[in-house]
This record gives sequence, C-alpha cells and structure tokens, in this order.
Amino acid sequence: MIRVITESHAVSVYLGDSLLFRHGSDAPAVFVGRGQARFDMYRGNFDIEDYLEAREPLTHLDVLQDGEAHRLAFRRHAEDELQLELRLETTRDGACLTTRYAAPGINRTWWRLAAERDERVWGCGEQMSYLDLRGRHFPLWTSEPGVGRDKSTYVTWRSDLENRAGGNYYHTNYPQPTFLSSRYYACHLETSSYADFDFRHDGFHELQVWAVPERLELFAAPSYLGLVETLAARFGHQPRLPDWVYEGVILGLKRGKAHAEEKLEQALAADMAVSALWCEDWAGIRETSFGARLFWDWQASESRYPDLAGWCRELESRGIRFLGYVNPYLCVDGELYPVARDHGYLATDGRGEAAIVDFGEFHCGVVDFTHPEACAWFKDTILKANMLDIGLSGWMADFGEYLPVDVTLANGVSAEVEHNRWPTRWARVNAEAVAERGKTAEATFFMRAGYTGVQAHCPLLWGGDQSVDFSRHDGIGTVITAALSSGLLGNAFHHSDIGGYTSLFGNVRTAELFKRWVDLAAFTPVMRTHECNRPTDNLQWFDSAELTEHLAHMSRVYRHLSPYLRALVEEGAELGIPVQRALFLHFEDDPEAHGIQTQYLYGPDLMVAPVVEEGVAAREVYLPAGETWVHLWSGVVEEGGRRLTVNAPDGRPPVFFRQGSAWRELFENVPGRD
Amino acid sequence: MIRVITESHAVSVYLGDSLLFRHGSDAPAVFVGRGQARFDMYRGNFDIEDYLEAREPLTHLDVLQDGEAHRLAFRRHAEDELQLELRLETTRDGACLTTRYAAPGINRTWWRLAAERDERVWGCGEQMSYLDLRGRHFPLWTSEPGVGRDKSTYVTWRSDLENRAGGNYYHTNYPQPTFLSSRYYACHLETSSYADFDFRHDGFHELQVWAVPERLELFAAPSYLGLVETLAARFGHQPRLPDWVYEGVILGLKRGKAHAEEKLEQALAADMAVSALWCEDWAGIRETSFGARLFWDWQASESRYPDLAGWCRELESRGIRFLGYVNPYLCVDGELYPVARDHGYLATDGRGEAAIVDFGEFHCGVVDFTHPEACAWFKDTILKANMLDIGLSGWMADFGEYLPVDVTLANGVSAEVEHNRWPTRWARVNAEAVAERGKTAEATFFMRAGYTGVQAHCPLLWGGDQSVDFSRHDGIGTVITAALSSGLLGNAFHHSDIGGYTSLFGNVRTAELFKRWVDLAAFTPVMRTHECNRPTDNLQWFDSAELTEHLAHMSRVYRHLSPYLRALVEEGAELGIPVQRALFLHFEDDPEAHGIQTQYLYGPDLMVAPVVEEGVAAREVYLPAGETWVHLWSGVVEEGGRRLTVNAPDGRPPVFFRQGSAWRELFENVPGRD
Repeated sequence: MIRVITESHAVSVYLGDSLLFRHGSDAPAVFVGRGQARFDMYRGNFDIEDYLEAREPLTHLDVLQDGEAHRLAFRRHAEDELQLELRLETTRDGACLTTRYAAPGINRTWWRLAAERDERVWGCGEQMSYLDLRGRHFPLWTSEPGVGRDKSTYVTWRSDLENRAGGNYYHTNYPQPTFLSSRYYACHLETSSYADFDFRHDGFHELQVWAVPERLELFAAPSYLGLVETLAARFGHQPRLPDWVYEGVILGLKRGKAHAEEKLEQALAADMAVSALWCEDWAGIRETSFGARLFWDWQASESRYPDLAGWCRELESRGIRFLGYVNPYLCVDGELYPVARDHGYLATDGRGEAAIVDFGEFHCGVVDFTHPEACAWFKDTILKANMLDIGLSGWMADFGEYLPVDVTLANGVSAEVEHNRWPTRWARVNAEAVAERGKTAEATFFMRAGYTGVQAHCPLLWGGDQSVDFSRHDGIGTVITAALSSGLLGNAFHHSDIGGYTSLFGNVRTAELFKRWVDLAAFTPVMRTHECNRPTDNLQWFDSAELTEHLAHMSRVYRHLSPYLRALVEEGAELGIPVQRALFLHFEDDPEAHGIQTQYLYGPDLMVAPVVEEGVAAREVYLPAGETWVHLWSGVVEEGGRRLTVNAPDGRPPVFFRQGSAWRELFENVPGRD
Repeated sequence: MIRVITESHAVSVYLGDSLLFRHGSDAPAVFVGRGQARFDMYRGNFDIEDYLEAREPLTHLDVLQDGEAHRLAFRRHAEDELQLELRLETTRDGACLTTRYAAPGINRTWWRLAAERDERVWGCGEQMSYLDLRGRHFPLWTSEPGVGRDKSTYVTWRSDLENRAGGNYYHTNYPQPTFLSSRYYACHLETSSYADFDFRHDGFHELQVWAVPERLELFAAPSYLGLVETLAARFGHQPRLPDWVYEGVILGLKRGKAHAEEKLEQALAADMAVSALWCEDWAGIRETSFGARLFWDWQASESRYPDLAGWCRELESRGIRFLGYVNPYLCVDGELYPVARDHGYLATDGRGEAAIVDFGEFHCGVVDFTHPEACAWFKDTILKANMLDIGLSGWMADFGEYLPVDVTLANGVSAEVEHNRWPTRWARVNAEAVAERGKTAEATFFMRAGYTGVQAHCPLLWGGDQSVDFSRHDGIGTVITAALSSGLLGNAFHHSDIGGYTSLFGNVRTAELFKRWVDLAAFTPVMRTHECNRPTDNLQWFDSAELTEHLAHMSRVYRHLSPYLRALVEEGAELGIPVQRALFLHFEDDPEAHGIQTQYLYGPDLMVAPVVEEGVAAREVYLPAGETWVHLWSGVVEEGGRRLTVNAPDGRPPVFFRQGSAWRELFENVPGRD
C-alpha cells in the first residue's frame, strides 16, 4: 500500500495516490541543525528553552538502490560532506527510514510530512486537552501535566506563582512521538529525546527532535481500527485485567486499617459492589502543606496497618483484594534509601554522590533503572518481598516523569536522553516483578506516566491528577480525552481517580462533581475512588448517605456490565483495541464523529456521553448515522445521524446501545432501568 | 580606535585590543535564514510568533580590498552563490557594515558580537524593567508596554485574561535596536523590522532581525559620556524646553473649563508654582469601561471649553499656558474622519477601504504618514489651525505604536516594516507643524512611543502609562529605568505622569504613592500631574489640603532648582547628554555604580534616590566614591564610596549634591531645608 518512488535526487513516499513524504532539492523535507537546550526542573515541572544555532535544509540528496531498499545520502549542497544517511525500506505495514549515519555535531533534526488542509491527526501519547491535534504543536516530554493547564485560569496562575506548576495544554505524564492521521496512516519517531510535533501548518506536519532519531516509521492500514491494531502490535499488548477487577469498585482509602475496615463495612452494608481496598498509605504518611503525602519507604507500616499480610488473607477470603502504592523514589529519611545508596543503586550527581530530588518539603533518591542490579533489588526487595509476597494484589505505580536531566546514570547515557524512557523502564520493573512471581493474571498496577513502549509493560493507565472540578483543561472531562488519545496507541485500558485528585487554593470537590465522576467511571474498565490530596477538606463517598448510595448503585451497574467489559478486555489484550474508543474508530465515514472528544464508544456497542459540565441537567449527544440507538435507561429508540439533548440526572449518564447489539439483553437489564 | 583586521577568509573588528566582531569559517558570526511571522494585534498588544524554516551560518567569506574599505562576500560554502555582500569601512566614530546585496528569499539574519563574561549592556530604547540588559533578550517592536508586565502578578494575569494586555519585561512603547556596552562601544542596527537582541550568552551578543538590515554601525568613545554624545549626534538633538516650563508644575485636568478654572485658583491659592494647564479633554470625552477616554476628533470642544482661544490668551496673560492632546487616529464618529477618508489620507485594508482599528469600545482610522499630503493635511488642519493657532502651547502626542501590520500604505512599503517607523513619523509630523509655525522654542509636545531617529523630532518623552502603584515592573520605579535607558540614546528630556495612569481591577492611587511621585518629579525636567484613566476613583492633588500643599511645596522646589535645570537642558540640547543620568556616566570606574537603576544623577551634581517602594520610611542610597556628598535637606555631609540608609519622609526624597558643586548656593537655599 505504501509506495516509494525515487528519482536520482528526490524520494517520495505515497499511500495509494496520496503523498506522505517527499524530499527533493526543490522542497527539502529534512533539516539538520544545532541547538543548546536549557532544562530547568522544579518538582516535575520543566521550563525548557532552546538556543537554536543552525537549521539547515538538506537540499542535496543522492538516492541509491540498496537491494530491496534505498540508501538516501543527504547533503546541504552538492559538494558538502555527508550529513545524514538513511535507509528507506518498505515493510509489511508501511515504510521505515532508518538512520545509518549522521555528521558529528548535529543535535537537532526536523522532518516534514505532507499534510492536507482538512486532515486530522490524533495521538501523541495521553493528551489531556485535545484529541484532534491539528492546529497546535505538541512538545513531547514526560512531566507533571500542570495544575490548571490554561494560563487564563486563576488556578493556573496561582500554581505558576507558588509552585511553577501551572502547565499548558500539551503537558502530560505520557507523551509519545507517534500520531495517527485521518489519511489512514500513522507515523512514529523512534527516539527518546525531546521532540515537538507541529501540526499548525496547512501543507505539512513538522516533527522536531533534539537528536537524530533512530527511525521514522510509517504505518498504513485500510481502517482506523486496523491502524490501532498495527500500532498495538508495534508497541506491545497489555495482559487481561485480573478477574477480581470486575467485582466492583476499588475503594481508595488512606487513613489506616481501622478506618478502612469501617468504610468497607459501610460500603458492603449499602450493597456496594467492592472489588478491592486501595490503601496508598500502606507504607505510612507524611503531612505537607500540599496535603497528606505518603511516606516513600516502601514497606508496610506496622503502626498504620498492623499484620498487613494477615489482613490481606482475611480480606481475600471475603472476596476483597488489597492494593498499595509505590514509586521509583526513596525518601532520604526512610530505611531503604541508605541501602540503595550504599549499593550504588541510585542515580548520582556530578560528584558521585546520590542525586537528591525535591518533591515538595521532602527529598528523595532516584533508583537508577539503567542499573540491572538496582532493578533486581527494587523488584526483589520492594515489589516482591514487601508487596506481592505479603498479599498485595496490585498498586499504583506512581511517577516516572521526574528524572532530572543533570543526574549521572549507570549506563552512561545522558539523562536528557533517558528522561523520556524512564516511565517505560519503571513500567518494566513493575511488570517483571509481577511476572517473576507468576502473578500477571492476578495482580495489576496502574501508571500515569508513559512513553513509547510502555504499552508492553503497563497493564493499566490512570489519567493522572485532575483537579477536583469541571475545568476544561484539568477537570473531569480531560480523562475522556486521555483515554481516547492513549487508546489509539494501543493502551487498551484506562481509568481515573473518581472525584479527581488535586485540591488547591480553596478548590474542593462538590457532591455534583463526585457523582458525575462516578457515573463516568462506571463506563470505564476500572472503577476506583480517590480521597484526593486533602481528604478531610474534600467530600468522600462515605460522608453522606446520598453519595454512598450513589456509588453503590453505579458499582452495581459496572458489575452488571462486566460480561460485556470482559469481552472488550479480551479484544484489548489480543488486538490492542481500546475499551474506550474515539467515535471515528467505528464511524470512519461520518465527519461529525471525527471531532468529538467528550463522548466515546465503550466497546463497539455502547455510546457514552458523560456529563463533564457543571450545573447542567442535560447534555448534547451525537448519535452517528447508519445506526439505531437505544437509550440505556429508558429504552427510548433514537435514529442516528443527529445531535440530541439528553436529560442527564445523576446516575443516568447519557448512554445508548446499538439496537442490533448481541449484548442487548444484558443492556436491557441494567440496574436502574425504567 | 576601531581597527579592522582582515585575512582572506576572515574579518575581525577590534576596539583597541578588545575583539568586537569576528567572522571566519571556523566561527561564523553572521547567519541568514527564512521564517514566517505571525503578528496578532489586539489594542496595541502584539502576539508575535515565528516559524523558522532555516538558519544557516555563512561559513565561507571572501574579503576583498575596496579602496579604503573592504568588501565582504558571504556564502554558505565555497561553491555557493553569493548570499550577502557587506561593505566594511571605518568611520570617524567607529566602523560600519553596509549591506550591498542579499540573496532573494533571505528574511532573517543573525549577527553575533563578541562579548565578555562580565560585560554590561544598556539601551535598546526606553526600557521599563531593566537598565542593564545582560542576561536577558529584548524583542524590539513598538507596542503597548502591557499592564503589570510580570506574569506572576495578579494585575498582569487579569490584564492578559480580559484585554490580552498583560505584557512582559521587554514590552515598551519605545524600543530601539541600539545598545551601549561597558566595553566603551555602542552598536546600532539600521532597520525597522522586528528585531530581538539577545544578551543571554557568555561569549557573544546575538542580534536577530527579521530582515536584512541596511547597516550595522559600531561606535567607540573614550568615555561613556562621549559615547552618549556620539549616539546623540547620530540620532538627533532635541530643542531646548520652552521657558515657561520652568515656572512650575503642569496641571493635568480633564473635566472641562469650569473645573480647570476652579482647580487653577485652588492651586494658586496654595502658592503652587504652576506653568500650564494640560486639559487633554480639550476635544471632548467618551466614557468607556476602561474609564473616561477622549473624543478622538481633534478640534476644540465648544461645549467643554467655550471660546478656548480666548481663554488661552487670558491664561497666557497670567503666565499660564494651555496644553492639549492629540494622536494619529481619527474616530469614525468624528467630523475629521470622513474628510481624511475621502481624501485618501487613511491607511487602507486589503480591499481599498479605510482600515479600522479597535481601540476598546470605539473605532478609528489611521492617518497614513507615508502619504505626504496626509501629513500636510494633519499638520495644517489639526496641529496648526486647531491647536497652535488657537493658542495651545503644547500637547501630549499620544500613541504611535499601533500601526497594524495588515494595512496598506501609500508608499507601498509593508506595514510590518513601517510599524516600528511609525513613532518617528508621528514625531516628525508634530515637530514640523511646530517648526512651520516658528514655535519650536515656545511650544512643546511629549510622546511615549519612539524608535530610531525619534530623538531628532520629539522634544520630550514621557514614560507612558504606569500603573497607579509601586509594582516592580509597572509602577513608579519604572519611570527611572525609562529615563536612564532612553537617555543613553540621546533622549535628553524625560518625565512621567505624576501619580501614574492605569487604574484597573480595583488598583487605585494612594496618597503615599501620589506624594512619592511628586517628590520624584520635582527632580525631572518637567513636572506634570495626570488624573489617570479613572479620575473620580483615584486620589487627586485637589482632593485634600495635604496633597495640595505637598504638590505646591515640591513645585516650588522644582522652580527653585530651575537655574540648574536650565543649564542641564542647555547641555542636553547641545550635546544630547540627558538630564537624568545613569550613575556610571559620571563614575565609570566605580563598579558599584554600574548596576544601579533606582537612583540617578540629575545632572552631574545632584544624586537623586526617590522612594519607589511602598510603606518605607527610609531607603538605601549609594554614594559613589571619590566625592563628598551633602544631603540636600539637612546639609549633613557624607563621604562617598558607601551605601547608607537615608530617612525619607514625604517632601524630602533622598537627594545629595556634590560638595564642590558650582551650584552649591542654589542647593543650600532649596525650600524646605532645615
């Protein structure tokens, strides 16, 4: 399908009759240059500047046949020395440009792909603000996503002022230099260096990399679903979710065992479907001005969770799992830190001392995952001995975005280059520990950070730390964009903190927000509550009978739908097709479906349009053409191909199923149906 | 003093043994490229972005002797076609690189000058935030300076949000691509295109221009004062201030004649030294949400100022002048607009219609100052007939920064290129009108906007629209930075709105601020009050006996010092040496003096350190070494070479005179002395 056409001094790559890439002296598409970057990190937020010294078009190209492939020799002019040599070959799925040589000193490259004016592009990792990336540029650097993420909001301004944490639309824990085009192709740059994909131009997309990438990969498929399958095959598939997940909601609690026991009983008494307790404070807590933080020394806190192993067994006998929390840092005042430091398992500073990172009123060492023995130690001592072996069935594998660029690593690679790789290395350490204990089918972990290849290791994404509100770029709605964008790159399973996480500057959860989030989460692969960063300032499900009842009801809806969900998970694990899907994956020819990012298909048969605005009693839903849709709660039948306003009281988020669905009977018996 | 040393493929420019510029294939200092700019203007605030397509070092240089000069032929490589040809010649004051040829398509150039690590640089027009420019970059584009000008402040955030008017440290009404270096040289780029001077690098300064500049001019002098004189000779000298200025304060009033008469009597009754009334509402007013704005149809408002000509005569007989207000725009609902439009005197849009600019709740046409007949009409009809001839002795010549880049001009030059020239064109129209009536010595006007060459036409700068507060980047202190930086480029006369101008978001003038500003203004060439944008919400001098008395007292101080001021003005008019001077101009060898921007020398003999912080009773003053200093108010003698804390009650701003001054007796008899 992808065709390469060469002349002696030009090369073109077509998909059918559609030009994807052309480089010739008349219109160079590859540029090389030199720059000096400045990275300034403050608690996971990066201020990045570049001084660009040169950017030179490679106007002279010699194309040489090389067996089945072509050798492309790029120069700035005919008499120039060789600047860049690429090997271009077509592959089963598309085409690949592999770097064979780059002249010394080149540390910036730009790659132009041909674009069409009305083309849409999607992907670039887990994007929080925009599903369709056209018209904007997307720096790709794993970091805190920022609080507010919109310079016009008060919260963003305050965050910038007080914590340099304001963020912008493109900040994400999980960037990836991969995008899909509405022209039925996808493009991936194999690199971990800082990149910036620019989709603002009418006639071309421009991919900037602060390095010479290893490869530029092009993929084509006859359908969008096929493209997603191709990318999933390229980046890795996730294992199936453990069986226990389908039993109900995972209750996030972090006030010690007695409190957790009490709340579990309260939940069960309300007939809540509960699958697990997630007690992130299992290793202890620390009070900071940001709120209650955890004690980052990864072993059970005997004072907070006495005989945790025994309690895990007891819970499991009742069908309830216990989950914990871990991240790749060790607080300097913990017991594990000196062990890791003395063995040389921590990243070091310029003087050979353990590098210390400020996490906001406490400091940590960074476990060096480029060091095989450090990985083995972390897996054996922490993930296996301290977690799996005492009975934890999973955990939040937090962070991964904070590798400072000025540390020294065991593998000798610059931390600037390793920075984006860190989430994938972190995921791999977790996945290997689980696999080495033979628990891949039974234990899970969830991450917010990611990068190329995280798909092969991280079984479940969570959408990161939303603000406890409805704000456009940081609130409830962003978790849909996150699920849809990451799903296109083969991340089949996504979920979020019910109720959001970040409560700052007087911004606290309302009952309305909590209920809307519960309603949304019932139609995602995993339901899990979070107490947020300031638990006592914010509403919890156990604070009122109304909220308890609401969560209980929707947990039963979730459990009721689990046979359908299991089938979706199966498809996700086998093919990489995400459970939550952008509308265009199933409605390729419906242009209306292409721009929608606040509703999604939950598998092929359910259309979900959660309420993500404050103070509304209804929302607009687009039902694609060519289908007849049935309102999940009332059974009212609607013809597709139009927008309609759907009443949306709590507990009845706008959801429709396809009238012809094989799951119709299951849907018709959903709890709460008229 | 400046020496040029050539090799066959390299050129160096030295000042003594100190390298200023070197270009060779080993270390190119000139780069050319191509970019696509996007300018988005909203009410004088510009959002500017560049897509940089290429930036190429001109690594191949051929140097050819050409009489006394050298011809420099730049190529990207030996076989390249000619990219740039410059003529390099030494001049009486330095050296000059003149563009002779540039290859088609080049629209970006970069010029590196050698820098030393501890070098300081100053200038770049009228800078509000920083006198020493090292460590920062300075985009040079005349615009609104922004309200707040510091993204961390609430006012800036609100301004950005509501009016896109937040600004940053480098925004200014008056940029100029000219700087002075502590290495006793100055550099000027002759261009009006967008430029960005980057002083962040240890080893070089980099001047970016979105064009091929006409010339790069280097000036050397054995002293900083000599350098200022050289630049003043290059850019033009101002005429002397009119005699009546020295008589006292110019009272800014804008509530019609009856109110002005009443306030004048109130001032005179308080024994205030008054030189003029400045009634900017002479042409009428318009109420907007920003506050009371003026009616931009430049003719006396008979309803607000009945028989203005008669009143001007009456006032002048009492020794009081009358000043007005004008700007280069005509409101569409005025009488002059259709006349200008029908004669083709207005800038047009792409369809040949008059271009309309939004000024915030009203719209205007832009008089086309590239059209000689439009200039003549504006001078004859407005500045002469409507203003000078009825007896106005001067005016605020407001604006000049707003030329939109998408209008069509009579001279056929792109508005992107004309934009920065506009303030100078505007100044020239005003200066010519005054000169053509033979009133250069008697009438004056004051501008906030400027650019290269404005010095030759604008007799007096004012510091623009400060916020009515003590804020670091927008308050009272910025008018000192503004006076000192612009003064280094030959703008000898500067002053500011007493009390500031911009009152937004509940930010209003305090009595403390007003008094501190009066104290500062008494030690500037011109004292002038302003009612600010929201007169009735903000304190005025006539609102309390205390403020009236305070202004009256300091107006007498100003008048008392006028013999000294006259001598400074003489020096300013003859040599271009500014009245308000950075300390290093007179203390070149005192490194402490080089970094100070909140105190200044008022002529050679007075050291002025106004209080520019809120809520303080004293401030620190640096007295340079090698002098003995006398406290103006107490007569206490202090040895120089140290910092001391000086009590600073209202009416006694920290001011010292040189003990050996020829003006000692005048200083010792200042009103208010112990």
